[in-house]
Order: sequence, then structure tokens, then C-alpha cells
Amino acid sequence: MLYLVGLGLGDAKDITVKGLEAVRRCRKVYLEAYTSVLTVGKEALEEFYGKELILADRETVEQEADSILKDADVCDVAFLVVGDPFGATTHSDLVLRAVKLGIPYQVIHNASIMNAVGCCGLQLYNFGETVSIVFWTDTWKPESFFDKIKKNRQNGMHTLCLLDIKVKEQSLENLMKGRKIYEPPRYMSVNQAAEQLLDIIRNRRLQGEEPEITENTICVGLARVGAPDQKIASGTLYQMSTVELGGPLHSMIVTGTMHPLELEMLKLFSVDASNFENNAFEKTS
Amino acid sequence: MLYLVGLGLGDAKDITVKGLEAVRRCRKVYLEAYTSVLTVGKEALEEFYGKELILADRETVEQEADSILKDADVCDVAFLVVGDPFGATTHSDLVLRAVKLGIPYQVIHNASIMNAVGCCGLQLYNFGETVSIVFWTDTWKPESFFDKIKKNRQNGMHTLCLLDIKVKEQSLENLMKGRKIYEPPRYMSVNQAAEQLLDIIRNRRLQGEEPEITENTICVGLARVGAPDQKIASGTLYQMSTVELGGPLHSMIVTGTMHPLELEMLKLFSVDASNFENNAFEKTS
Repeated sequence: MLYLVGLGLGDAKDITVKGLEAVRRCRKVYLEAYTSVLTVGKEALEEFYGKELILADRETVEQEADSILKDADVCDVAFLVVGDPFGATTHSDLVLRAVKLGIPYQVIHNASIMNAVGCCGLQLYNFGETVSIVFWTDTWKPESFFDKIKKNRQNGMHTLCLLDIKVKEQSLENLMKGRKIYEPPRYMSVNQAAEQLLDIIRNRRLQGEEPEITENTICVGLARVGAPDQKIASGTLYQMSTVELGGPLHSMIVTGTMHPLELEMLKLFSVDASNFENNAFEKTS
Repeated sequence: MLYLVGLGLGDAKDITVKGLEAVRRCRKVYLEAYTSVLTVGKEALEEFYGKELILADRETVEQEADSILKDADVCDVAFLVVGDPFGATTHSDLVLRAVKLGIPYQVIHNASIMNAVGCCGLQLYNFGETVSIVFWTDTWKPESFFDKIKKNRQNGMHTLCLLDIKVKEQSLENLMKGRKIYEPPRYMSVNQAAEQLLDIIRNRRLQGEEPEITENTICVGLARVGAPDQKIASGTLYQMSTVELGGPLHSMIVTGTMHPLELEMLKLFSVDASNFENNAFEKTS
């Protein structure tokens, strides 16, 4: 049996009781380690689960899926995923391979950033398409996410922006020389995401467009959702470029049309309570 | 402290370890019992948690929120919610009251139907606004959800349809006579939801409209997601009107534009594999 087990978002104890029982029963336990991170390390998980974990980076999962599954054919194997196994990153590929090989699988769900963002008070109902904001480079500055946010907002919908993670990336030089030397992991902050959006707004204005989203659009910055030190901050997009939210992981929401109850919840987290209402009103009017 | 604890979707063991520890620590434990149900009853939860649960129906939560919070001011109180506390139904109101009274609160997240639907293989990224399909009566047949599904589909987005639940409803007669006699609970099935959508399509055609969504649109029916006997069925909207999915809770997805990997996953669950590809192709072309 192959168990796909969601770990939730905070620390070792965010696994479900059902998930923990499955992990403890399994002969081999893989930890997917390239799309997200918990606030605790592999060692803390190993201690709590009482199991040795095999780190599965992108290479392992993509290139050695068959060997992971070979084990699952003869014994119980767990594949642990931060959040939910079908949350921000889906593991459809592994499931499809398992089914083709006739290996039964079971999904043990958990919270993912896709639903836990509800804690800021914006209703999950009212979210449109989720976007990913990627790190810009000197030569590559895509803006497609901006147009999706714009479309959601025109439809009155909020947009959850998942922020880029670069884990086990190689420098161009190391890649070309075939050296398996990796850069330190990078996690996009709300500040960086907001800066990129502000850059796009400036570009659009230079092109004569008055963008639907401005520096005054109400946004929400979220850090380490589900962890004891989680931080939520609401304010203008401009305020998001300077707000201090601490370590990764960060996510950001660009609001659409807000219900009064949503507005009242966001006020709890406002960077600058005195101006929040003005900006929010400007925004929804 | 007020703990808002998500219970997940299946049975007693879908609570997280952190959630279980909080419940066992609390003096009073309320179970929100009007927006969703687990596949197990209150007794099974009480046995597993080792705690007596106070059922909180809509009346209790809306009318007695202050008494729930009065307790939370002096001791630890848990408010248990099927799924996630900020999932399909948010409990913002309770949070706002707690904050006003200066009572600290903590959210313990879990899977909700809003993210667990990813198990069918459709990417959560690609979902638009979520809709609720309500039970029609002889005199009230709203169609607004249809227009939202249509809009999502025009944008290429999938739509999660949450299906109506009627718990502790009074008949008109009992309501008028002020008798607190309640009808047996009703949960909308995928069959019923599909029938209502098919009715709307017929109506629209009579009005000369050729609807974006037809009897051949690919949909997904889901029942008891996260439970051991969960069922997923993919097929045309027409097939959803007759598919057999068993007991509640049901949800339905109307697909938008599908990625090849999404299509391949949905094929695993197809009601009629031989025709699935034809219909899916017709749909996305």
C-alpha cells in the first residue's frame, strides 16, 4: 500500500492521528522536500514519528518514482507531503504510476495553504484562480500572474498568491559544468512579491494603462500559517512591500470585493488601523 | 483560550495530534453540528477524545455565542468544526466576538472539502469561485449558481459545488405555530444536484439560449471524501444524475478546461471509460 500523507502546515504534531498511525506502520517513509517546508526540520519529525525519513527531492520523485513504488508493492510505504497531498502541488503523477502498477493507494488529507488562508477572515468561497509569483531574474520578468489577479479582481474575487521557493537549484555555471552543487534555498517574502507587483503597476502606467490593482489595493500578507508564530498583516499593497513578517513560508492575498464581515476580520490584522478603512473603502468602491 | 479545531472529513482519527491534545486539555468542548457531518456520530468522537461533547446547533452558536465565550474567558474551551474552522463555513463571527472580549483564540487547521477535492486529480489552482447548490422548492428555484458555474467555465476554471444540507429545519406549519419540531435532516445528493442543473439547461434552451454547460459537460461526483468508503465518479452531467454514490456528504465539480494530467486522473474514476474520452474531448474543444 502507498500512503500519501498530508503533514499540515505547522510542526510535527499537525499530522492527523490517522496519518501518524499509517506512518508508524510503514516500512519506508519518504518526505517530499521540494515544494514546501514545515517550520521544523526532518530530525524533529523523525523523533516524533519514531521513524527514519528518506528525503525525496525533486530528482528522487521524478527519477526514482518506480523504486519508491517497487517498495510499495511488497510493503507499506508512506510518502509525506507538507500541507495536503493534493494541495498546492499535486502528486497525481505518483498516483497514476501506482494505479498502472496495480498498487493500492490511500490519501490521508490535511490542511494546506489553499484552505488554511481562510484564517485571515476572507471567505474561501470568494477566491478565484490561485496564482504563483516567481522570482524575477535580470532577464526574465514574467507578468502573467498580474493579469490573472486582475481578472479575479474584475470578477470580485480574491487571489491567493503562492510565493516562489527555490530549493536545490544550481547556478547556471554549475548546471553547465554538470556539478551537483546547489545554491542555498530561497523563499520569496511578501515584501519581494509586493515589490514585483508594484514594478508591474509602474510598467503598466508607463504604457498608459491605469491598472485595476494599485499601491492602495488591500492585500493580506501571511507567514508560517498554522505555526505558533504565524503572522497575518493586512494593508495596502504598498504597505506589504515593507511589512515585517519574519521567516518563511510567506503567502499573499490580493483582495477582490469584500463582504463587511470579511472587512471586519481583516481589520484585526491591519498594519495601520487608522487608515485601513479609508483604503479598503477606496478599494471596494 | 478558545480553540477552534478542525476535525477533517472522515472519522474520529482525522483530528490532528495537536487538535487532540487541545481537546483533551479543554474544560468544555462544543461540536458544531449544523454545517457538516462526519461519517461517525457524536458518540464515536466522545469515546475517542475521552470527552463529553456539547452539540452546538445553529441556534446555540448564534444565540449563545456569549455563553460559549464566557467559559473561554476562565478556562480552555474548544469549538470543534468538521473540516476546517475556516473552510466551507467560516466562524469569523465567533472569532470577532472573542477578540472584542479580549479572549485569546487559536486555530487548529485541518483538511476541508475546499482542498480535499484535489484527490480527484483536478488541480486546486484551476478552480474558480465555489458555489452552493440549494434544494429547490415548489415555489423557489434559484438559478444564480448556474451563472457562476458558467462564468468559471468561460474562464477555463473548474467549479466546486457544495450541496445543500438541511439540518434542524422546521416545516412551515411548525415554524408558524412556534413548535420546535424539526424535520429529519436532508443532504443533497449528486443525483439531485445534477437534475437541478439539467432542469436549468432545459429552461435556458426554451429561452433560446445555448448554454455553456450541457448534459455532456464532464463533471465529478464525490461522496464521503476522506472516509474509507469515499467514492469518486467522473462522467457527463447526465451520468451524474444517475450515478450511485451512497450516503452523504456529496459534492460535485463541473470541470472547466482540463490539463492532460487532470484528464488522465479523472479517467481513473470514470463511470463509463469507453465514452469518457469522447465526451471530455467534446467538452474541452
